Amino acid sequence: MQRDSILIKDASWVVTQNPGREILRNSSIYIEDGKIKEIGKINEKADLTIDGKNKIIFPGLINTHTHAGMTVLRGQLDDMELEEWLQKCWKLEPRLTKKDVYYSTLLACMEMLKNGITCFHDMYFFGDSVLRAMDKIGIRGIFSQTIVDKTYMSEYKYPDQALRIVRRLMKEWKKKERVKVNLGPHAIYTCSKETLLKVRDFADENELSIHIHLSETKKEVKDCKKKTGLRPVEYLENIGFLSSNVLAAHCCWLNEKEMRILKKNDVKVSHCPVSNLKTVSGIAPVPKMISNSICVSLGTDSAVSNNSLDLFREMKFASLLHKFNSKNPTLLPTQTTLDLATVNGAKALGFEKEIGSLEVGKKADLISLDLRKPNLQPVSKEAILSNLVYSSDGRNVSDVICDGRILVKNGKVLRINEEKVYEKINKIISKLI
Amino acid sequence: MQRDSILIKDASWVVTQNPGREILRNSSIYIEDGKIKEIGKINEKADLTIDGKNKIIFPGLINTHTHAGMTVLRGQLDDMELEEWLQKCWKLEPRLTKKDVYYSTLLACMEMLKNGITCFHDMYFFGDSVLRAMDKIGIRGIFSQTIVDKTYMSEYKYPDQALRIVRRLMKEWKKKERVKVNLGPHAIYTCSKETLLKVRDFADENELSIHIHLSETKKEVKDCKKKTGLRPVEYLENIGFLSSNVLAAHCCWLNEKEMRILKKNDVKVSHCPVSNLKTVSGIAPVPKMISNSICVSLGTDSAVSNNSLDLFREMKFASLLHKFNSKNPTLLPTQTTLDLATVNGAKALGFEKEIGSLEVGKKADLISLDLRKPNLQPVSKEAILSNLVYSSDGRNVSDVICDGRILVKNGKVLRINEEKVYEKINKIISKLI
Repeated sequence: MQRDSILIKDASWVVTQNPGREILRNSSIYIEDGKIKEIGKINEKADLTIDGKNKIIFPGLINTHTHAGMTVLRGQLDDMELEEWLQKCWKLEPRLTKKDVYYSTLLACMEMLKNGITCFHDMYFFGDSVLRAMDKIGIRGIFSQTIVDKTYMSEYKYPDQALRIVRRLMKEWKKKERVKVNLGPHAIYTCSKETLLKVRDFADENELSIHIHLSETKKEVKDCKKKTGLRPVEYLENIGFLSSNVLAAHCCWLNEKEMRILKKNDVKVSHCPVSNLKTVSGIAPVPKMISNSICVSLGTDSAVSNNSLDLFREMKFASLLHKFNSKNPTLLPTQTTLDLATVNGAKALGFEKEIGSLEVGKKADLISLDLRKPNLQPVSKEAILSNLVYSSDGRNVSDVICDGRILVKNGKVLRINEEKVYEKINKIISKLI
Repeated sequence: MQRDSILIKDASWVVTQNPGREILRNSSIYIEDGKIKEIGKINEKADLTIDGKNKIIFPGLINTHTHAGMTVLRGQLDDMELEEWLQKCWKLEPRLTKKDVYYSTLLACMEMLKNGITCFHDMYFFGDSVLRAMDKIGIRGIFSQTIVDKTYMSEYKYPDQALRIVRRLMKEWKKKERVKVNLGPHAIYTCSKETLLKVRDFADENELSIHIHLSETKKEVKDCKKKTGLRPVEYLENIGFLSSNVLAAHCCWLNEKEMRILKKNDVKVSHCPVSNLKTVSGIAPVPKMISNSICVSLGTDSAVSNNSLDLFREMKFASLLHKFNSKNPTLLPTQTTLDLATVNGAKALGFEKEIGSLEVGKKADLISLDLRKPNLQPVSKEAILSNLVYSSDGRNVSDVICDGRILVKNGKVLRINEEKVYEKINKIISKLI
């Protein structure tokens, strides 16, 4: 499909996130064939023009850990102990159908786009539904097929079947560059060593990445030590599972040695502060990981454990939590925090050459934020980054461009009938509860 | 001024926050002379009608601690140690003029209204400016005149002068029921015992309340013990300062005995979780205060230490922080958290008979939230409170009514030219930096 060229004309602020972290004033951005062709003073005309006056142009945010298919369960599972949560979740989740997961993922995508997220990394079942929803709405995304040894989900029973699904999905979706299929071995406590190694081999053979929950709770560490004599990260290194294509979500309970192992193997981390606080799992040692040059990105986790899919909130939580936890208000300053949600997110997904910053040649995934709202006022060079981290929210997001296409215009999602999705979603939850 | 009668017609959900915490379906609310006259099935016609379909009607949120005049400094003072912060703040703040504080307060009010806050408790200088801004925009509010023994602010030099200002403001504003003047002795480390007692006497003579920062940092406790042999709350009780008309902001470092003293004296607390995290001051023992039946409300603190004036964010931070800190995901459940921002806020300000819940006879301070946004979907009886706490944000706020007048309509502030305020605010910050 031919894409219209787009000119973002005279943007008041362009926060590039390029290697020099340049912030440009009154600059234009020319987009053609889905890519950024030019940034600066531009006189050329384009098929579509967006007025950049009173706008901040910023790279699309990247959510590196979520389960979009669970969004339909938002608000059903709050304020309870883990055991009760699991019991209730395991009653509801297996009743989700392929169609339910499609609409649930669409809802999640609508919310993410409106919050300026142009790329997300999902781990769930029903890949056909997830990929179809991503494709329909136009967002960039990776679907990681959940792999467990035993499952309550009706879709399959064994890891081999999950890998067959991945093989089929890879084949069916290989022409769509914007969406990708990946491997999601759930965790060390739901996958045997054999399964983990089977996934590792499959990843190597097929050049796929791996998305896993790791060291989320203290119990996981305790159980792993009891069973293997090793801590979770040591165990995964020991069996030869770790490499630069592994993205580990949570990582709340790492010790110094484990951080060195992650660094040595160039493992990427998805930090999910809101989910970790809400489920009382732990606080990831993010400042230490950053000072050890480990690539830390941000994830919302699911709408059941968050409950919003909003990286502006996640940035503020991350920055404040680690300042407080380290008793140091200078930690996770604004630039570092913005990096987590953009350039680090891109690197975590292996997309660092394509997205995460506004540079000529990169894909055109970007958002415009409306400065004419009280929460972003006053506007000054000193305040611009600070306001992005500490006071922006989704309502500032005016336009969203992904892969060179306008997906959100003045806060409205273009390719979807929002009302229809709400209707479907409410029918699903009525059926479930 | 005559107020139009208003009918909110067939609201999908009315979350009353009344003593039975009833949630009504498909109900209407009739408002006349600034008060709620009827709730239920209503056929009467009103001057103005608001469609309640796909809306949650909820009491206006109450922000019990802020410094609105500092909003113009948002984004200027982040990510630094307290000492550096103070130095920079003390350079900028004294340069604020009466007019600057007027526009800064207007900006704060715009932001608060758009976030569903209909009443706030301010502590600052330049009361004429603050009260005029409150009056102009139509919000309900209390201005507490900051009182300190020594000050860098140009407005006055000594406590006696501050009390003279309070006396004048009381006289000038006594006819305006919606805005009130109060006393704001800054803290125990900036006010001498003599000053605190002078304030106490003045409050008693004039039936005013007192707004003070209390036990915000560990240093405050340490210094107080060194100087007086007592902890801050013990000290204030000892000098006879405490009573039911004292609202203490922060209270991060209370021990069990101090909590008993607060309870005994019916002192109210304004909990400011975002500010406390950002400035690394401490975590208030909120679950313990609640179980001791101390009235805990929520405050944003200023836009310099937050940086947003948003009680939806504050509720989520409060609930998650205390779950995590107590290692108990059942603490601060949704209903308790909603109470902090509504009924408890009203009680903290002595307004519990007038606002904080939707009941016949109470003042019409209420907001409507648009359910047709992805972050509040799906909609169900189970999810409605949860979504208010964990996934709502200002963008869901559609209409805001305060004192029976519509102040925000479809997200737009009515009585103010927003653009003009932004212009003024940006001129002020250009002048300051």
